[in-house]
Amino acid sequence: MIESRRRRLGAWGFEGVDYPVPTPLLSLLNERLGASVGLPRAAPSRFEIPPPTPLPESLGNGSQEPLDRLAHARGQGLTDLVRLRTGTVPALPDAVLRPSSEAEVEAILRACAAAGVRVIPWGGGTSVTGGVNVVPGDKPLVSLDLERLSGLVDLDERSGLATFLAGTFGPEIESVLGARGFTLGHFPQSFELSTLGGWIATRASGQESLGYGGIERLVAGLDVVAPAGKLLIPAFPASAAGPDLRQVVVGSEGRLGVVTRATVRVRRRPPALVIKGTLLPSWEAGVEGAREIVQRRVPLDLLRLSDAAETGVALTLGLRKDRARDRIVRRLLSLRGVTEKSCMMLCGATGDALQESLAILKTHGGVAVGASPGRKWLADRFRHPYLRDSLLDSGYATDTLETATRWSRINELYERVRRAFEEPVVVLCHVSHPYEDGASLYFTFFFRCPRDPEEATSRWAKLKRAATAAILAGGGTLSHHHGVGMWHAPWYESEVGRDGLRLVEKVAAAFDPTRILNPHVLLDPTDRLEI
Amino acid sequence: MIESRRRRLGAWGFEGVDYPVPTPLLSLLNERLGASVGLPRAAPSRFEIPPPTPLPESLGNGSQEPLDRLAHARGQGLTDLVRLRTGTVPALPDAVLRPSSEAEVEAILRACAAAGVRVIPWGGGTSVTGGVNVVPGDKPLVSLDLERLSGLVDLDERSGLATFLAGTFGPEIESVLGARGFTLGHFPQSFELSTLGGWIATRASGQESLGYGGIERLVAGLDVVAPAGKLLIPAFPASAAGPDLRQVVVGSEGRLGVVTRATVRVRRRPPALVIKGTLLPSWEAGVEGAREIVQRRVPLDLLRLSDAAETGVALTLGLRKDRARDRIVRRLLSLRGVTEKSCMMLCGATGDALQESLAILKTHGGVAVGASPGRKWLADRFRHPYLRDSLLDSGYATDTLETATRWSRINELYERVRRAFEEPVVVLCHVSHPYEDGASLYFTFFFRCPRDPEEATSRWAKLKRAATAAILAGGGTLSHHHGVGMWHAPWYESEVGRDGLRLVEKVAAAFDPTRILNPHVLLDPTDRLEI
Repeated sequence: MIESRRRRLGAWGFEGVDYPVPTPLLSLLNERLGASVGLPRAAPSRFEIPPPTPLPESLGNGSQEPLDRLAHARGQGLTDLVRLRTGTVPALPDAVLRPSSEAEVEAILRACAAAGVRVIPWGGGTSVTGGVNVVPGDKPLVSLDLERLSGLVDLDERSGLATFLAGTFGPEIESVLGARGFTLGHFPQSFELSTLGGWIATRASGQESLGYGGIERLVAGLDVVAPAGKLLIPAFPASAAGPDLRQVVVGSEGRLGVVTRATVRVRRRPPALVIKGTLLPSWEAGVEGAREIVQRRVPLDLLRLSDAAETGVALTLGLRKDRARDRIVRRLLSLRGVTEKSCMMLCGATGDALQESLAILKTHGGVAVGASPGRKWLADRFRHPYLRDSLLDSGYATDTLETATRWSRINELYERVRRAFEEPVVVLCHVSHPYEDGASLYFTFFFRCPRDPEEATSRWAKLKRAATAAILAGGGTLSHHHGVGMWHAPWYESEVGRDGLRLVEKVAAAFDPTRILNPHVLLDPTDRLEI
Repeated sequence: MIESRRRRLGAWGFEGVDYPVPTPLLSLLNERLGASVGLPRAAPSRFEIPPPTPLPESLGNGSQEPLDRLAHARGQGLTDLVRLRTGTVPALPDAVLRPSSEAEVEAILRACAAAGVRVIPWGGGTSVTGGVNVVPGDKPLVSLDLERLSGLVDLDERSGLATFLAGTFGPEIESVLGARGFTLGHFPQSFELSTLGGWIATRASGQESLGYGGIERLVAGLDVVAPAGKLLIPAFPASAAGPDLRQVVVGSEGRLGVVTRATVRVRRRPPALVIKGTLLPSWEAGVEGAREIVQRRVPLDLLRLSDAAETGVALTLGLRKDRARDRIVRRLLSLRGVTEKSCMMLCGATGDALQESLAILKTHGGVAVGASPGRKWLADRFRHPYLRDSLLDSGYATDTLETATRWSRINELYERVRRAFEEPVVVLCHVSHPYEDGASLYFTFFFRCPRDPEEATSRWAKLKRAATAAILAGGGTLSHHHGVGMWHAPWYESEVGRDGLRLVEKVAAAFDPTRILNPHVLLDPTDRLEI
């Protein structure tokens, strides 16, 4: 068991962890966006928490403790942080239920269906797409927290198949598997805070997906419990017996049912990941290098290519106290052709693949910069999101957007999204999930955060709408790994078409005929960016 | 364009191609199963072909030519061959329609839905699971042959994405791509006779799936036309925007709609595949060797492990005319520990991976036997199915069964299926699609074929039922790559569960509310093994 740490309420992560904004970043934002003042933070204990709507007795004894309800009201998107921090959360669950068995989940769902109670399945609550947000409504609403459905059920070492209950958190999975010499290799940025069931429901990808695949490849079998049915999908290495039902559940965001357990493909734990940095002379050269590496199928576990802006920030953040030495390094790099257009690529592998990828990058004008940028990234990789809260303290808001497209469209899409923002913003971008036929683009943008939470939310919503329109117009998918949730749902039909939407609706209706399960995500096209 | 060759009617493959039964195999069957006499072959021109049911005028001018109807009445399963050969086909399509555009497919499906005409989408007609068989019924039935929806639409070389119309046959795909320096790498045994749309509908795997993946990995985007809807699924490298709708279409066997075009992932054509043979001391050693190779992720394109029985037959078939030299080779092998328990493994790769796999197999007691077994297999790989017809000429029937399971269950499943046959049969087996978590098992069985086609069919049905029960009891999937079709449909529910079946039914009903599309496959549980 992992020592349990208390989650921060209204901010990312655990109590006692923080990531203060590095001075160079603050100076940059100040210079580019103008000076700002911190967004106020109100104490949750002083929030006005409305009393819960009474629930039918059949639901048993859930927690109705105000702070527990508040902690289950929102995910971890930017406006969730803003609202939780400022006490402007428009609705809370009426109770938090924590079933301790799959039978209990079934009973709860049946009781909720009978009583017309909405249910939001809750894993780690780290959605950044409004995927677990409570929407004000006529029907009562409960949060179904799966934290008690946790732990390893079975490890088949010969087959490399591990069955876990769905509420198991990332660190627990790796710790239990690690003790037996295995790894799942799934490390999303939310790793420390998110669960297997949540990864499946949102079709998550980890930072080493190049080597291990996203959760859709890692999941071999699944159990799903719904108000009107149950799917027990066996774990086969492959099957041609009809459509792949696992792939209907993966990404269903709670609309079809609650994932209660899953069998995942695990591997013998390899030697430690080694990451090497290379500076490429331009974004285009970096994209070409990434494309060549994956199309040659060099078995890397990780590849990240930052654009020039992100590279600049990363180098700034990485500045040592020893400025003199830093200046020397910079001068050396500049002698080797490194400019402010240079883009950093990190390549990670556990075997010989690294040499092969570095050789390829050399042909694209790459300059090796050694292991330290990768070491720094690896050390901080789960800490980066804490920066969002410290930035709000300084009056700057930051959010991320992500998409994926084929290689032949990637540069155009990149330019289009960067140009989409009308307000003054700072935009950074990287490729972190390359495939043989294309790659994801991950944008981080910063803007000056208004002190009024409503104004902050509406400024964000405007930026989000513009960027999403640019993504779709540029031939990108609505999401590579954040999911659809509530915030992308207005655009879901433009990705899958009217009949694609209808297909998913029919399946949802078959398992949840009264539409009580997370009813405002994925299939509900109402624009709720400002809620 | 590939020179078009005439298909044989009532037998596998093309006219002018044949695979006479090698004398050693005939002796073996004679010895193990008893002497037999050939199944008679009647001339199709002398069959009594019932006149077609009149069709609504809205369907346009399909072909109602008797031999065309006959050629579209059945797939290529054993009993299809028996029935086509003996003129005992119980039902024929009333017409064969050959639309030349996607709009025409749409119009036909709408007209059929309006008039209550059943439709069987037809690619290459090579199903071995009754997947395209005509069942006698009240409603008229048309075969929708997609051969005119053929050809490359677009090749995005940078992204490695090729869009083809769905009726394009295997050789045409490789020829068009080859001319541009690319390959799809999908080589099912039916490669010469089957189409992209058929591969998608049946969730096919090629013989090099270890390197390229099955069709479910190769398909990036799809267009599907249905009586009540249309899916246009865009090609993204990955997407977290909801469930993966491609994986609902792949394996849907015509029940949801007709695949009209698809975008597939293609690769730069690698150097020629090199295949090396190794003899392993036992089945178990071979399985362990295969497992280690894939779990170490050695990048092979192909791995086949034959059991001792299949190895014996393969070596027999491979006997050279030069018996003296052969005896010398055998003696040398026996000095190196090769016995009648030895199992042949073929490993194929285009790079250094071969050395790595051979080194692994050495640690499992493997003895390298060089390139000639692989060369022979490669030369004959699309010819093997012709043997079925020559065997019927000699009075022996042969069919195949296939499944997949996790590594920890594979030996038990192997034994269980081999013991399942009550009748005297000769059973051979191989692993041809290994995965990190398990592998497929592919069984070939031979039995003496009764001269009476009804008796032959019912003997086969009995064997098939027993083997299928053993597969399910042993924890195998109903099919690794042949699909469900009509013949496996009675067992489909036991694989996916009542609610899994219901899920697929709901989707089918949404796109084909009057159930005219291939209505007897996948979801219709009636046992039709004897039809």
